Amino acid sequence: MPTTNRQLLLQARPAGLLAPGDLQLTESPLPELQQGQALARVKFLSIDPTMRVWMADRDNYLPKIPLGNVMRGFGLAEIAESKNPDFKKGDKVIGLVGLQEYVIITGNESRSFQKVPAIPFISDSAFLGVLGITGLTAYFGMTEIAKPEKGETLVVSAAAGATGSIAGQIGKIHGCRVVGIAGTDDKCKWLTEDLGFDAATNYKHPDWKEKLAAATPQGIDIDFENVGGEIMHAVLDRMNLHGRVVLCGLISGYTSENPALENFATIIVKRLRVQGFLVIDFSARFMDAATQLGKWKMFGKIKDRETMLEGLEKVPEAINMLFAGANTGKLIVKVA
Amino acid sequence: MPTTNRQLLLQARPAGLLAPGDLQLTESPLPELQQGQALARVKFLSIDPTMRVWMADRDNYLPKIPLGNVMRGFGLAEIAESKNPDFKKGDKVIGLVGLQEYVIITGNESRSFQKVPAIPFISDSAFLGVLGITGLTAYFGMTEIAKPEKGETLVVSAAAGATGSIAGQIGKIHGCRVVGIAGTDDKCKWLTEDLGFDAATNYKHPDWKEKLAAATPQGIDIDFENVGGEIMHAVLDRMNLHGRVVLCGLISGYTSENPALENFATIIVKRLRVQGFLVIDFSARFMDAATQLGKWKMFGKIKDRETMLEGLEKVPEAINMLFAGANTGKLIVKVA
Repeated sequence: MPTTNRQLLLQARPAGLLAPGDLQLTESPLPELQQGQALARVKFLSIDPTMRVWMADRDNYLPKIPLGNVMRGFGLAEIAESKNPDFKKGDKVIGLVGLQEYVIITGNESRSFQKVPAIPFISDSAFLGVLGITGLTAYFGMTEIAKPEKGETLVVSAAAGATGSIAGQIGKIHGCRVVGIAGTDDKCKWLTEDLGFDAATNYKHPDWKEKLAAATPQGIDIDFENVGGEIMHAVLDRMNLHGRVVLCGLISGYTSENPALENFATIIVKRLRVQGFLVIDFSARFMDAATQLGKWKMFGKIKDRETMLEGLEKVPEAINMLFAGANTGKLIVKVA
Repeated sequence: MPTTNRQLLLQARPAGLLAPGDLQLTESPLPELQQGQALARVKFLSIDPTMRVWMADRDNYLPKIPLGNVMRGFGLAEIAESKNPDFKKGDKVIGLVGLQEYVIITGNESRSFQKVPAIPFISDSAFLGVLGITGLTAYFGMTEIAKPEKGETLVVSAAAGATGSIAGQIGKIHGCRVVGIAGTDDKCKWLTEDLGFDAATNYKHPDWKEKLAAATPQGIDIDFENVGGEIMHAVLDRMNLHGRVVLCGLISGYTSENPALENFATIIVKRLRVQGFLVIDFSARFMDAATQLGKWKMFGKIKDRETMLEGLEKVPEAINMLFAGANTGKLIVKVA
């Protein structure tokens, strides 16, 4: 059994992007396992924009993390040793494992860790991506909030990201015209050529708003919004009356303290419904949704991609990659 | 028959508040009435925040007004002469009469003017206020968008205004705890002592946010938002999870080009539904709604107040009064 654990502690709250030392790698002894506990080795960490929100000095939808504590993180771990009847060695679980190599699961917490089944052709890491939080976010955002109808025009921002790429494909399954907004030509090519988006526009080109207009000749009925700021502004300008905005994320604002939306009055003028949502509200239905996503994946209706880094020490770099748009699809750090 | 008309023309688009000369008073000859036309004398003009939005150099929910044209305005007029079988002398109509003393209603436009009935104890001007656009806005915003349930906490901003004062009273009829935000102690007193609001807070007092918190011990379920900006910011901070924001107006931003909302991410964190709406979408049901409002008014369930100025030339001053919060209840200019 291992006797030491490597952990990333939150030592300082970042201003803007993460700076060296905000998350500090330390080694600490692993305490002996108590009755009712299980020790799990973290295999993969899910790198998500929300982690930046968690670092702030305020409670959010989860309580703030005290400085000096292990940084919160979602991941997949494999049970290495168990004194808890709910888990046996070799079981794989997903949950808030924390940014560390080992996590001790105590009896009380055990319900927040979910065992993942072994499914042919489905990799473990898929349970962090297409079948995990980001895939489920796309699933519930589309099916429960957007409720797309055939023939409607859906625009997805951060469309080549882990959530956006799945949301757009679910839009295609529902018969929408789907237009993605992404930050490189390669990402746009991936969206249209591999994922079946009807069009994609690179917001770093100066004429991208004209291209967005050309790609949405009937206006926009649904905005699956992951970015906020100037990109959301441009999408709202093309929304149809009575359109819906699925407010999933505002990544453009997470590294500043006040993500603002400037053309807010458009919501009145166009009678838009802006619905904020968090996937955790749908947790009772995660299994059903993951099963549906798994079927779509197996039948080729949904494709996914991962960007993977190796080593716990790469996590700060990986988080900053999100805000630079340096990943395509799900960003994961392989720990073990 | 009159041969001249006095009109307010939109000569310049205001930056911020209206400046002298933005609306210019002119006299022009009244053309002779053609077959199918009716001449109506404007009695009352409804002064509403949306007029400032109409003055901007862009199409909105209505097309922009070309410079040099008669400024758009809603009001009540009395038919003075008619060559149209739909109208007879003495009929009173409401509609977009324009900021002028006389309006010629042509056959094509006649459907956009609605005759108002003579009802005992109901003044003509009530058809611009409690039974008119602002009352109807409150009615549909509350019953169709907010859908309040008994025991919920409703906060109304610009609560002593024409729409807010009615919205809050409809909240009381539905069994809500109703808290108003207004800009003078007198208005707050009117809300609690005359209109039955449970509490009211004056946002010009430095400790108003603490008072808002004290007045909403169970948090806020519904925000009937008329103001935006810093006031909306403070209300969102006290919203309960899954709360609803009825986005009725953003008066704090109408005199700037970009009304921004700073704590936009709160909509995600609290999973809020923000629904923009315009009363014109419910025009097919105006008569039913006005009947209900009339009943409530007659039975004392809803009280209203008017602030009235006299003379067409007072319109620019009246519009600016709205943005200074100088009116209580419905602001009206009596023309004839």
